[in-house]
Amino acid sequence: MANINQDYLKLPGSYLFSAIGKRVRAYEEAHPEKRVIRLGIGDVTQPLVPAVIDALHRAVEEMGEAQTFRGYAPDLGYAFLRKAIAENDYVKRGCDISEDEIFISDGAKCDCGNIQEIFGKDNRVAVCDPVYPVYVDSNVMAGRTGKYDEKTGRYEGVIYMPCTQENGFVPDIPGEVPDLIYLCFPNNPTGAVISKQKLQKWVDYANDYGCVILYDAAYEAYISDPDIPHSIYECRGARRCAIEFRSFSKTAGFTGLRLGFTVVPRSLEVQGVPLWPLWARRHGTKYNGAPYIVQRAGEAVYSEEGRQQVREQIAYYMENAGYIYDGLKAAGYHVYGGVNAPYIWLKTPRGMTSWEFFEHLLSRANVVGTPGAGFGPSGEAYLRLTAFGRREDTIEAVERIKDAGIL
Amino acid sequence: MANINQDYLKLPGSYLFSAIGKRVRAYEEAHPEKRVIRLGIGDVTQPLVPAVIDALHRAVEEMGEAQTFRGYAPDLGYAFLRKAIAENDYVKRGCDISEDEIFISDGAKCDCGNIQEIFGKDNRVAVCDPVYPVYVDSNVMAGRTGKYDEKTGRYEGVIYMPCTQENGFVPDIPGEVPDLIYLCFPNNPTGAVISKQKLQKWVDYANDYGCVILYDAAYEAYISDPDIPHSIYECRGARRCAIEFRSFSKTAGFTGLRLGFTVVPRSLEVQGVPLWPLWARRHGTKYNGAPYIVQRAGEAVYSEEGRQQVREQIAYYMENAGYIYDGLKAAGYHVYGGVNAPYIWLKTPRGMTSWEFFEHLLSRANVVGTPGAGFGPSGEAYLRLTAFGRREDTIEAVERIKDAGIL
Repeated sequence: MANINQDYLKLPGSYLFSAIGKRVRAYEEAHPEKRVIRLGIGDVTQPLVPAVIDALHRAVEEMGEAQTFRGYAPDLGYAFLRKAIAENDYVKRGCDISEDEIFISDGAKCDCGNIQEIFGKDNRVAVCDPVYPVYVDSNVMAGRTGKYDEKTGRYEGVIYMPCTQENGFVPDIPGEVPDLIYLCFPNNPTGAVISKQKLQKWVDYANDYGCVILYDAAYEAYISDPDIPHSIYECRGARRCAIEFRSFSKTAGFTGLRLGFTVVPRSLEVQGVPLWPLWARRHGTKYNGAPYIVQRAGEAVYSEEGRQQVREQIAYYMENAGYIYDGLKAAGYHVYGGVNAPYIWLKTPRGMTSWEFFEHLLSRANVVGTPGAGFGPSGEAYLRLTAFGRREDTIEAVERIKDAGIL
Repeated sequence: MANINQDYLKLPGSYLFSAIGKRVRAYEEAHPEKRVIRLGIGDVTQPLVPAVIDALHRAVEEMGEAQTFRGYAPDLGYAFLRKAIAENDYVKRGCDISEDEIFISDGAKCDCGNIQEIFGKDNRVAVCDPVYPVYVDSNVMAGRTGKYDEKTGRYEGVIYMPCTQENGFVPDIPGEVPDLIYLCFPNNPTGAVISKQKLQKWVDYANDYGCVILYDAAYEAYISDPDIPHSIYECRGARRCAIEFRSFSKTAGFTGLRLGFTVVPRSLEVQGVPLWPLWARRHGTKYNGAPYIVQRAGEAVYSEEGRQQVREQIAYYMENAGYIYDGLKAAGYHVYGGVNAPYIWLKTPRGMTSWEFFEHLLSRANVVGTPGAGFGPSGEAYLRLTAFGRREDTIEAVERIKDAGIL
């Protein structure tokens, strides 16, 4: 008789963003006259840039002709895209990463969720708190945690690294030594960034203790400060301890197009076993490549025209971030992030829980944020707003929050 | 100190098709004057049909305009596609499957590889022998098997169900009761099909013993015989014991576009736990949807125009199958499959092993097949040819094989 993966039953309720979606839909059905502005889920609103649209049309044409039709993609992704990535994202920044260390995928969420598979079940996982839920949930599903404790909002067996106002939302090295360390900078959800010096300390620590850092750099394109590292491979020794995840979702508005990549350096070994062949095997066995047309779209992001257009789009979102940050700060809110990141981390007023504040914002300002508690216990009493809305919506949302008399 | 998933080390060598690719590239580099014809990997060669190309262009246009841009897709996939699938693939065939039981994905390979995650580690897995390697390899990676035995070509702990000339390449109910049963019809690699009566026996067996059938129907579009079931849900009681995988890869030439779906009926329970929410949770946590433009392309396959064009493409490939089947049979080979399936299962001549025959075909006829042994021990002494080549290549390949004097 078949039996299920009992670890799935440890997960309380549904995936955070599905849960929020349901509440918002329920509110909208009950109040059809209200126009709800969504600054909750980190989804972009600006259309794909012209260079990407052109590349897509061209690639679609190719797929319609026998001479240029493409079937299955190469296992690691097309060389034209891996080459563009290696050159632009790594070599130009002084990182020693070659194209055959880049694995093209349909997004960082999948890769972040799947990467844990190549590690043993008894690895001790450390995550920031608050944290992007996928890191934790995928490890719960794999049986790498104990039970969920409703009171603390934590799973047994996970090392939580609080990111608070006190430490500038950058975690301290934990007391207990972990095996796998998830780091994400610029951070989702807090919008915090990490200095190169501090990131170097993590890399040194990982090399000293034999940890692997799983570095999510999905938001690196939002960094404007020249001293903030875009890649963990800007640090010495990172090739021996770190895997990096990147995404086109926020860099170029690909949330609905799906493209990302993972970097596994050839020199990264665990117990003398190189990780590159393990991830290659996972990729080759359980994945079949990103669509050719989407890989061509990704290539176009690195063209001169594409780079310029994408930069403008990011600037647009970062101006949104400025409106939210400045507007709410001026109104008396405590506001974090939003400078080198598209997320604003808002302290809830008057001692509200983050779900209370979420409900207040939804019902009184008709604005959707993401309750910080959904990202972990240290996210309690915070709420995440994103800069990915339309300009007019963003400005209106800020005005509505100011006028809602919540403070 | 981190450690790796030791189960990955049980996998011998690389993924079958990667291994073949390497040998073929090595041959081509050594013999640049030879034109190699690939009838090995099951990749299509005909361009996408006009209805699909038009839908792609239209969807790309939408992605370039702010008013029609789409970000993250709904968790299960867009309703327009799920509706088209439910109506055309299920309701029209008398299957009681509704659109909310359909999970859109980027292909059946991923879903077949990932589905095992929602089951416990101690489920006993039964597979056909020979078999599509993903079913076995994904279970090896999950630790659901013992070691690989080089002598027998089998993993400890897996129930292999031989599919041989004697049983018409349709497995018999195994002596030992499994928990999870992988079935694939029309079959890859043998090209065999299963009658509704025989499939009903499997469904009844699964319901009697509490097994779950993981039914891969990726090739159902190639069925021409009206008595052969296209879906396992044509059988009574399948909603209580079966998950079905479908793909647009072979139906509509989407190998490079990536689209598939999985059906998990609401009434399918294991130990009283419905599987639908488990798969929904996996989908929501570790996957982020197929591209909007690709889902629109999938929808176009179900339009009147699309259906007609895709039917013609399938007819083209099935004529190829006829050329291979008839040509090699007339030449004295023992040939199976190829009637309701795009695969021809060829007995190796003169007692050759399947890798020996592969090398003969490559070096003497410059034709690539897939060695049957790569699909499991009962595939030894067979070779798979696919009907997905271009017409002129297919005809030439058959002539070359005839002329190579291998028989």
